[in-house]
Amino acid sequence: MIGAGYWGPNLARNLRASREWNLAAICDVDIDRARRVADAVGGAPVTADVQSILADPLIDAVAIATPARTHHSIAMAALDAGKHVMAEKPLADTPEHGAEMVQRAAERGLVLMADHTSCYTPAVLKMREVIASGEIGDVLFVDSLRINFGLIQPDVDVFWDLAPHDLSIMDFVLPGGLHATSVSAHGSDPLSSGKSSIGHLAMPLTDGVMAHLHVNWLSPTRTRRMVIGGTRHTLVWDDLNPQQRLSIYDRGVDISSISRATAKDRRAANISYRVGDTRASAFEEREALGSVVAEFAGAIRENRDPRTSGAAGLRVLSILDAAAGSLAAFGAPHPLGHESHRADVAA
Amino acid sequence: MIGAGYWGPNLARNLRASREWNLAAICDVDIDRARRVADAVGGAPVTADVQSILADPLIDAVAIATPARTHHSIAMAALDAGKHVMAEKPLADTPEHGAEMVQRAAERGLVLMADHTSCYTPAVLKMREVIASGEIGDVLFVDSLRINFGLIQPDVDVFWDLAPHDLSIMDFVLPGGLHATSVSAHGSDPLSSGKSSIGHLAMPLTDGVMAHLHVNWLSPTRTRRMVIGGTRHTLVWDDLNPQQRLSIYDRGVDISSISRATAKDRRAANISYRVGDTRASAFEEREALGSVVAEFAGAIRENRDPRTSGAAGLRVLSILDAAAGSLAAFGAPHPLGHESHRADVAA
Amino acid sequence: MIGAGYWGPNLARNLRASREWNLAAICDVDIDRARRVADAVGGAPVTADVQSILADPLIDAVAIATPARTHHSIAMAALDAGKHVMAEKPLADTPEHGAEMVQRAAERGLVLMADHTSCYTPAVLKMREVIASGEIGDVLFVDSLRINFGLIQPDVDVFWDLAPHDLSIMDFVLPGGLHATSVSAHGSDPLSSGKSSIGHLAMPLTDGVMAHLHVNWLSPTRTRRMVIGGTRHTLVWDDLNPQQRLSIYDRGVDISSISRATAKDRRAANISYRVGDTRASAFEEREALGSVVAEFAGAIRENRDPRTSGAAGLRVLSILDAAAGSLAAFGAPHPLGHESHRADVAA
Amino acid sequence: MIGAGYWGPNLARNLRASREWNLAAICDVDIDRARRVADAVGGAPVTADVQSILADPLIDAVAIATPARTHHSIAMAALDAGKHVMAEKPLADTPEHGAEMVQRAAERGLVLMADHTSCYTPAVLKMREVIASGEIGDVLFVDSLRINFGLIQPDVDVFWDLAPHDLSIMDFVLPGGLHATSVSAHGSDPLSSGKSSIGHLAMPLTDGVMAHLHVNWLSPTRTRRMVIGGTRHTLVWDDLNPQQRLSIYDRGVDISSISRATAKDRRAANISYRVGDTRASAFEEREALGSVVAEFAGAIRENRDPRTSGAAGLRVLSILDAAAGSLAAFGAPHPLGHESHRADVAA
Repeated sequence: MIGAGYWGPNLARNLRASREWNLAAICDVDIDRARRVADAVGGAPVTADVQSILADPLIDAVAIATPARTHHSIAMAALDAGKHVMAEKPLADTPEHGAEMVQRAAERGLVLMADHTSCYTPAVLKMREVIASGEIGDVLFVDSLRINFGLIQPDVDVFWDLAPHDLSIMDFVLPGGLHATSVSAHGSDPLSSGKSSIGHLAMPLTDGVMAHLHVNWLSPTRTRRMVIGGTRHTLVWDDLNPQQRLSIYDRGVDISSISRATAKDRRAANISYRVGDTRASAFEEREALGSVVAEFAGAIRENRDPRTSGAAGLRVLSILDAAAGSLAAFGAPHPLGHESHRADVAA
Repeated sequence: MIGAGYWGPNLARNLRASREWNLAAICDVDIDRARRVADAVGGAPVTADVQSILADPLIDAVAIATPARTHHSIAMAALDAGKHVMAEKPLADTPEHGAEMVQRAAERGLVLMADHTSCYTPAVLKMREVIASGEIGDVLFVDSLRINFGLIQPDVDVFWDLAPHDLSIMDFVLPGGLHATSVSAHGSDPLSSGKSSIGHLAMPLTDGVMAHLHVNWLSPTRTRRMVIGGTRHTLVWDDLNPQQRLSIYDRGVDISSISRATAKDRRAANISYRVGDTRASAFEEREALGSVVAEFAGAIRENRDPRTSGAAGLRVLSILDAAAGSLAAFGAPHPLGHESHRADVAA
Repeated sequence: MIGAGYWGPNLARNLRASREWNLAAICDVDIDRARRVADAVGGAPVTADVQSILADPLIDAVAIATPARTHHSIAMAALDAGKHVMAEKPLADTPEHGAEMVQRAAERGLVLMADHTSCYTPAVLKMREVIASGEIGDVLFVDSLRINFGLIQPDVDVFWDLAPHDLSIMDFVLPGGLHATSVSAHGSDPLSSGKSSIGHLAMPLTDGVMAHLHVNWLSPTRTRRMVIGGTRHTLVWDDLNPQQRLSIYDRGVDISSISRATAKDRRAANISYRVGDTRASAFEEREALGSVVAEFAGAIRENRDPRTSGAAGLRVLSILDAAAGSLAAFGAPHPLGHESHRADVAA
Repeated sequence: MIGAGYWGPNLARNLRASREWNLAAICDVDIDRARRVADAVGGAPVTADVQSILADPLIDAVAIATPARTHHSIAMAALDAGKHVMAEKPLADTPEHGAEMVQRAAERGLVLMADHTSCYTPAVLKMREVIASGEIGDVLFVDSLRINFGLIQPDVDVFWDLAPHDLSIMDFVLPGGLHATSVSAHGSDPLSSGKSSIGHLAMPLTDGVMAHLHVNWLSPTRTRRMVIGGTRHTLVWDDLNPQQRLSIYDRGVDISSISRATAKDRRAANISYRVGDTRASAFEEREALGSVVAEFAGAIRENRDPRTSGAAGLRVLSILDAAAGSLAAFGAPHPLGHESHRADVAA
């Protein structure tokens, strides 16, 4: 584990608790910080020298929990040293850096995983499963709210603080991942703090489908909610309702006897409405980070892409980058760049 | 009353029930329809000839409930005949037509009122009062959702169907009305019906404040909710919660000892957070349209602008028009035109 | 229809709207009141003379909507005249009177129906269907709340005002009806109004199962909710939640491989817990009273007991009577009398 | 601290964290268990010999967290040794034992505190404060629900498992404590487990006021809710709603110009209804047990009764005991015995 800051103790605790991992070392430039984390999890070797880790042939993989601007150089060195890599979100500081990491991992045949922790909560895992099963049909829209009355961050705006959670979840649950054609970002800074504290992202996907995300630091009510409408059912994830986090509404719009894939003009179609039962799924609560480290181990063992691959991390990063471009253009749609395409090819 | 269609029976019933109005005639090109409405409210003279109404010196005012494309010609003729005018929303079919109506009414010294019925519900009247009192402080953001699982309309998109409600409410409760500098509209048509069934409007106001509106025909859950954040309090209107339609949260962000009007740079300011009580206002339920016709009478009697003036109707119309422009430009921000400015001058 | 008071207009309107009924006459001692109701539903013959109705051979059935103390004499005369009878709740003023009515109807081979309107709402009809299907298993408990911030009635206490709704629903949905072995009633009158404004009924059923009802005029929040726990599922009816009136929880207590009917001692049994999905049923909203008059017609046509038979009305009445007995004894359990048993035999 | 079982680690942690306490020893007959708790809180002396603690002149007070049946003998010995005593709930195994403890503490001039932890949550502390301030007026009713889908306990019924929480809260927030004149208990055991898993307690207080409690192990939904109606306002505590735990409704029944204390007959009074605002209080979340140990220290330092005194513990115990009596009599009201009166005198 490289980096023993904010996220370090959680990561270290889950690596220790896992039967699949042996926590070989905790590395931090501040060795005292590394030691404190090691103590808190019942002891582990510590070092301030990242090279000693990369040079150790007994170490198979590294988990990088350092600041985003250092991910690229550490990850590239680790991949070149033959280590599998998991990086905290965001994957890197720029899409270009992220794309290089994805490409290098592909070339070396190594696992590169994005630690999109939110994707591994039981409710989100279930969402992915429900959508993949075809139960809701084709996706018609995605609408997400993350209102989290919270501290105005000194260094990042509300997009970089909150949006990665929802974007990574969208990428995780949509079949094939989140592929927007452009991003329009609207931010507002009513307190003149120098960066957006309220934001909206509109992301057209293919086929007239749009994903939308609203992030907000200033509202007194808390909301963490995503609605994914489908041709057959609609799925509502309400993360702050522990008694009913995931509901599936058998309510929707039927387009009689015309398959959605072929009909180019729906104007003449018969549209009818259905009002059916609602079903709320039950889950066992389980710590997401435990599933994250299990997935990293599984991907290495089975020599496969992790469910939150480097390419997924890059797609999220590319959208955040495009959002910054749209913000600078006062909300004009910003096309998604070539980096993510390259990554798709690579992946 | 001119026009006896969908809205006619409600309007006629409230005009009949009011002590301030004497319903002189119901006019519709389909005289049978006019007669049916007259019968339903206990009888009233009917006519198919709008000229006979305009020529009648005993008639002081007309309420126009015809299709939007006919508002301009009827209203201009009525104003020229010296009648006060109330028009259903939208005020007119184009901002240019609306601006002419506003200007003509001003020139003639006559009342021109937009029938923004939603503004006269007890909860919205209370919102206006609370904001006007200064209780929530300066407005920091407006966020509105209208999710109304409903029929896909044959002739209008979701913006023209649902947004006028929220835009007229925003215009009604914001001090000075809704003055956006531009509009970005994002629509999606996942059923290929030929028009948007899901839409988002981002409207920057002055001073870094943004109003945002989400309208949706396709979600199985119903929501009608507006959050207005202020420097002192935040107001939440939840129209579908009869037990608590309007809540005021004493929760917010304090910017110590720096008045928001003067501080141009908040970066150095001390920002602190408050978590206080919530207060839910109680109202007597009352039919909004009764208050509408009372307001029309009051404005005429007191020779003043109604609370939903023609200028208000024009501001809403201008935003819908700009939204259509932004949609045509794939979501690029569309500036607000001169018509609304002219209207402000006129009003 | 005999009696044109509070309930009369609704009943008359539904009889008129039904294809199965021909509203032959509206009878009220106050002929003007009868006439007003007739006018409101588009006209019907009126009379102040109940004998003329009973003597009319073309009249098959009467619906009695007079005060409860008059039900017995009118119903007995109508049954003796060969008319089918539907009576408003409560069926009669005393269980003895009710039992006579039930017996007389049985002797004459005529339908006697209790107008338990609450039972015919779509949600309650669905509850009955779900329980009858065996989906929730054997009933383990019934817990009902009716908190209805409301006027203190001048003539009845909170039990007589509110409990008939819940008791008739329990009787309707429990397989075989509501058969309590005794009733304990606890009332309180904190405003010293002379009668209970808050009340609790505890009603042991067979096999250790208990039904409980809480009625309250004084709470500021409104609740109308019944929970019916079963060995397989639990059903929650929340009448004031239009988005989810009826939920079925697949959550419960399993008693492994021991059938509940045979095991007399569960102490040694393996009890395990299940947490499964929740399902909320959708209904079309439909006026209950329309289904009431259809049921009355259906029972006559098919020569069968209506789903809310006279015997059902008598069971409700007997419980209210026993509750009054328990109240007089400061809450001591009051056994259920012989009247209801006699009715069961008769039915 | 005597007893290192289920509750021990929490208690030890809070005693260690408090500046007012010096955790002199952890005593348990199982010395290994004592040692594990000591280790978990950073170390403390351990012993298996309770006499050594009572003999230690440096120890001022003991916290007893052993099984209820041992409270009396340990507490009596500790009081005789001049130690202040705090005992877990229930205070003792019988009201007689509890009354002796209360009396002995009074005779010795020592503090006897009941550890009614639920009373020290921020919301309940606020409830007590609101009621004491007179804000809700005189109490008209108390209605409490604790539905806690949970394990059927091997040794206690649902009354002994769940009711102590609500009874201790009622005792804490009602001015003067919870003084019922009798208790009617209705239990049901639909699974034939040998003890009640669903229960109802009806407790008439003075002046026509009734407190009622419903406890339930078998419902799939969780509820922890208490409504306290007053002559001026009504207070609703909803412990499972973190966004609004405590609401005060300005909604109620007014009895015009007749003081409740004097009017013996309200039949002629003018009763009117009010519908006003609702206010939800905000709190800082704080661990209740920290406030418990602070209260114990404060009561000793200031030589006063703690807010949850031994007498309070005895009142709760007496109600549980009377409930068992009522259960044995099939729900007949059981009068409250002399023990609690003696305790009041003693306190």
